[in-house]
Amino acid sequence: MALIHRNTSGVYIIAATPFTETGAVDVAGIDSLVDFYAARGVTGMTVLGIMGEADKLTAEERRAVLDRFLARAGAMPVIVGISDSGMANLADFGKYAMDRGAAGVMVAPNRGVPREDRVIGYFAEVCRALGPDVPVVYQDYPQTTGVPVSVRTILEIADANPQIVMLKHEDSPGLAKITAIRAAEAKGGRERLSILVGNGGLHLPQELQRGVDGAMTGFAYPEALVDVVRLHQSGAVDRAEDVFDAYLPILRHEQQPGIGLALRKMILHRRGAIPCPAVRAPGPLLSPTDLAELERLMARTAARVASL
Amino acid sequence: MALIHRNTSGVYIIAATPFTETGAVDVAGIDSLVDFYAARGVTGMTVLGIMGEADKLTAEERRAVLDRFLARAGAMPVIVGISDSGMANLADFGKYAMDRGAAGVMVAPNRGVPREDRVIGYFAEVCRALGPDVPVVYQDYPQTTGVPVSVRTILEIADANPQIVMLKHEDSPGLAKITAIRAAEAKGGRERLSILVGNGGLHLPQELQRGVDGAMTGFAYPEALVDVVRLHQSGAVDRAEDVFDAYLPILRHEQQPGIGLALRKMILHRRGAIPCPAVRAPGPLLSPTDLAELERLMARTAARVASL
Amino acid sequence: MALIHRNTSGVYIIAATPFTETGAVDVAGIDSLVDFYAARGVTGMTVLGIMGEADKLTAEERRAVLDRFLARAGAMPVIVGISDSGMANLADFGKYAMDRGAAGVMVAPNRGVPREDRVIGYFAEVCRALGPDVPVVYQDYPQTTGVPVSVRTILEIADANPQIVMLKHEDSPGLAKITAIRAAEAKGGRERLSILVGNGGLHLPQELQRGVDGAMTGFAYPEALVDVVRLHQSGAVDRAEDVFDAYLPILRHEQQPGIGLALRKMILHRRGAIPCPAVRAPGPLLSPTDLAELERLMARTAARVASL
Amino acid sequence: MALIHRNTSGVYIIAATPFTETGAVDVAGIDSLVDFYAARGVTGMTVLGIMGEADKLTAEERRAVLDRFLARAGAMPVIVGISDSGMANLADFGKYAMDRGAAGVMVAPNRGVPREDRVIGYFAEVCRALGPDVPVVYQDYPQTTGVPVSVRTILEIADANPQIVMLKHEDSPGLAKITAIRAAEAKGGRERLSILVGNGGLHLPQELQRGVDGAMTGFAYPEALVDVVRLHQSGAVDRAEDVFDAYLPILRHEQQPGIGLALRKMILHRRGAIPCPAVRAPGPLLSPTDLAELERLMARTAARVASL
Repeated sequence: MALIHRNTSGVYIIAATPFTETGAVDVAGIDSLVDFYAARGVTGMTVLGIMGEADKLTAEERRAVLDRFLARAGAMPVIVGISDSGMANLADFGKYAMDRGAAGVMVAPNRGVPREDRVIGYFAEVCRALGPDVPVVYQDYPQTTGVPVSVRTILEIADANPQIVMLKHEDSPGLAKITAIRAAEAKGGRERLSILVGNGGLHLPQELQRGVDGAMTGFAYPEALVDVVRLHQSGAVDRAEDVFDAYLPILRHEQQPGIGLALRKMILHRRGAIPCPAVRAPGPLLSPTDLAELERLMARTAARVASL
Repeated sequence: MALIHRNTSGVYIIAATPFTETGAVDVAGIDSLVDFYAARGVTGMTVLGIMGEADKLTAEERRAVLDRFLARAGAMPVIVGISDSGMANLADFGKYAMDRGAAGVMVAPNRGVPREDRVIGYFAEVCRALGPDVPVVYQDYPQTTGVPVSVRTILEIADANPQIVMLKHEDSPGLAKITAIRAAEAKGGRERLSILVGNGGLHLPQELQRGVDGAMTGFAYPEALVDVVRLHQSGAVDRAEDVFDAYLPILRHEQQPGIGLALRKMILHRRGAIPCPAVRAPGPLLSPTDLAELERLMARTAARVASL
Repeated sequence: MALIHRNTSGVYIIAATPFTETGAVDVAGIDSLVDFYAARGVTGMTVLGIMGEADKLTAEERRAVLDRFLARAGAMPVIVGISDSGMANLADFGKYAMDRGAAGVMVAPNRGVPREDRVIGYFAEVCRALGPDVPVVYQDYPQTTGVPVSVRTILEIADANPQIVMLKHEDSPGLAKITAIRAAEAKGGRERLSILVGNGGLHLPQELQRGVDGAMTGFAYPEALVDVVRLHQSGAVDRAEDVFDAYLPILRHEQQPGIGLALRKMILHRRGAIPCPAVRAPGPLLSPTDLAELERLMARTAARVASL
Repeated sequence: MALIHRNTSGVYIIAATPFTETGAVDVAGIDSLVDFYAARGVTGMTVLGIMGEADKLTAEERRAVLDRFLARAGAMPVIVGISDSGMANLADFGKYAMDRGAAGVMVAPNRGVPREDRVIGYFAEVCRALGPDVPVVYQDYPQTTGVPVSVRTILEIADANPQIVMLKHEDSPGLAKITAIRAAEAKGGRERLSILVGNGGLHLPQELQRGVDGAMTGFAYPEALVDVVRLHQSGAVDRAEDVFDAYLPILRHEQQPGIGLALRKMILHRRGAIPCPAVRAPGPLLSPTDLAELERLMARTAARVASL
């Protein structure tokens, strides 16, 4: 399979992990979900990220989930979240993923003293453990990891480790970080980083206008991300933002912390992507009020998109 | 002046505090800002909140700012943020505000051990220090205060202290909290709380549909908040949400942490509300990229609102 | 094996997990370590806690480590840390541990929205998943879990779930919590909780004087914990504190966040308890300065203890 | 008055701020406290720090407290905590302090996005606002400020701003930071920093052995800090640590977060340093159990010190 690199662009959808009502991994659901994503035109998938509930899976389950995603993905590139408290287990799973045909791996800085020099040391250790041929995505998501980093730290890590080819950008506030990275690259002397944005895509048009290469997030309307990125890249900047704005009300709703994943999986379920909307326990349950509210927003979205 | 109470509703705009280029309080700017808010139909104002940069003002400056807001507000009710690390200074300023004609005061739980029993004790102490005749708004904003509380803690505080008449709701995720409070009230045995929502109004339509009484936030398009609340209260629920959605792209942009206040003050400045957009130091400065981006979003908002 | 209950007392040492230089689990080291702890008179062991680096082990490794500890422990009771992001995996491992003869399990509240009502719900779910016959230790360690709770929340959880028989108390500040729990029990109407203290034992004499039943912590001089608890329980309160004070300088040194585990394992290694002092990566490495400093403190401790 | 500089050493006691039973500033108590500190041989005082409850004082009160401390201090150097959410107020108070004869000012990084590049920018702004002649202490206390920084960030700030002459070191874990700073200085090319340690002095012997210049903390037995630093500097390294160890049990007790300041002020009161032990509200109250426990520890300390 082709590997991700410093010019990778497009939409890498953060894939949900489907479970049955009893909380078992739903392997058949994986096939259905991959087909749903593929039919909506995504460039690739990122599996076993935070929103893929990787931390609720055993190592065996993670391998089984990955295998099934890869089998169904065919030629579509798959990035694999391998963040782990232990370095050996991180590296083992990273090698497993690459051996099976992954396009790259994604790592967030581990918890611990949140000093930036420690993060630099951590990523050096990660790259050493993986070996130099494994392309790595740095996930910059301090709201969840508790580890904020400066732009210069990101640049230093990417300069020191050529295999860190991509930034999953989801710091907040974050727009100025994108501009600062692109400005630093424009001065010359370093290779550009591919930047895909997360955070549900909440600021996607602005982020594209500031120079990112696409999105890596799990919004349950992947076609929206695909259309916005494609239109923007083709020069239809205003039209891209018009399309985005039509989806923004439900995107903002899905982006709520805590309950967002349950909403996302319910939308995916209602749209036929997964047989069962269950989040693995412990996780939020949607109340009848939540459900009615979500249906109302889905209907409004459909009407608005139809009028585009 | 009329006091706020458990059935207060409408839009209480969180007022910015205008500064000159040199960082001095711009008292003339206060008059201009009050007139701007009044002309857009707000019910009242909340001054010296977190977004009013109260923590960057000395006690003397806070008194001067409050006096000017009250003088210009006329009959419009004014709620005053009085959060303070010291209880005596909190109470002194609260009494000052009420003596000058404020409609109520707003308090967020102070930093310190974030155990919920401590918060219950803290609000008992606040109420005792203020005396029973001062209406108090509980500001539930854990993203900034670092003090999350359960619904039952809010209810217990409001039950034990009848003068706590209003909840400024801006926890996230927060929609279920509103429903839980309204359900607990529906069981009887306790007085209802007025609930106004913050967080820029990011989920205002859903919050109104779940039973809140309005908004208390500082969005730089107050007429949007006013229209949405009024339409909703008149039964035009869908139309209210249509209006909201037209403003959502710029509302979401203004709602960014860290840089949001600078964006908000720039919009207020561009709309003629304040002579100078300065945020008091230390605070973010807008780059030319930030400014061009903001202007683009303002133009898109104007076009979209015009087509409503 | 006997189960822990609401009157369990003594010293349950938090067992380190030994690794080889290459980071593999050192099963022979487990035997040596158990013998070391037993020879110093501990009541029992708690394995696979936070300081047992459980989060760096795969599920298979955790089972293997547990099996070896249980095999060597013989009649000594073993409590097993089973905290896990996923409820099903938590319950599976808990059942495995109890089937193999564990005396109970230990659970800390999982990360997530730190509201106390959520914690109450979480422990109800944990108890349901484990079944009512599994004795559970509530680990109250907010400095690491990020989830502080009030005394009344602890009491409510213990009242609602009789199987929660023990509190591992390591909140800070925490002395008043102990007194409040014992006072609530003295009023009658509820069963007492066994309370063992953590935090390296930093306040052990004061905690014993306030009514705790012993210690559950990993200090590398287990004989100190054993002597202090035994002397205190036999009425020699002053002598207990004299013994404690002799160990306090090195206890305080070992209690440093971040580097403390590496120091503890080095002491255990120097004392012959484990063949290799390695902390699994990622973890701190001790510099020559760190080592010389530690040796100096060990020598001072030996001299002081000899003069008791 | 002499200014602090990059070779300042000794003990700068963090001065408590005395209040009366009603919470008013106790100016007569300030005189008594200064005399107490002076009689125990401290080098200087640091007033209006975090433990001086500066955040509970109005700007007027801060000026009055400072004036009284300076008047009584005579030739003893006084450093003034000037941390403030607003830059103008920080600078105004800093200039006021220097005009009145302070030896320097102390600033902690303000809350806000905790990225290290922002901290670098913040201290540049602080130095510009104060002017180049004001010596500044950088307070590195992330447990309270929420802003951890790497060693290289500290060095960069100190290199770029020659007026930053001193580090108040109280990060935890922190011993390795001291060694790293001293090693970087030993390479040449930069001026050394004075380093005084905080955190109650919990690791003072180790910190002295690693090259700090003394202590800046508020331990209620200042003579202990003075003796330890003096003995260490005179080459009696072991004897210094023996003295320290005698005080360690009560030092550790006073060092508890949350309740520590109330304990410290009670000790100061019992030792005759201040007329009233009150902490300004909101603050912890000591229970009879707390008091009896403290008295017991004070008696044990006296006995142990007498036997040195």
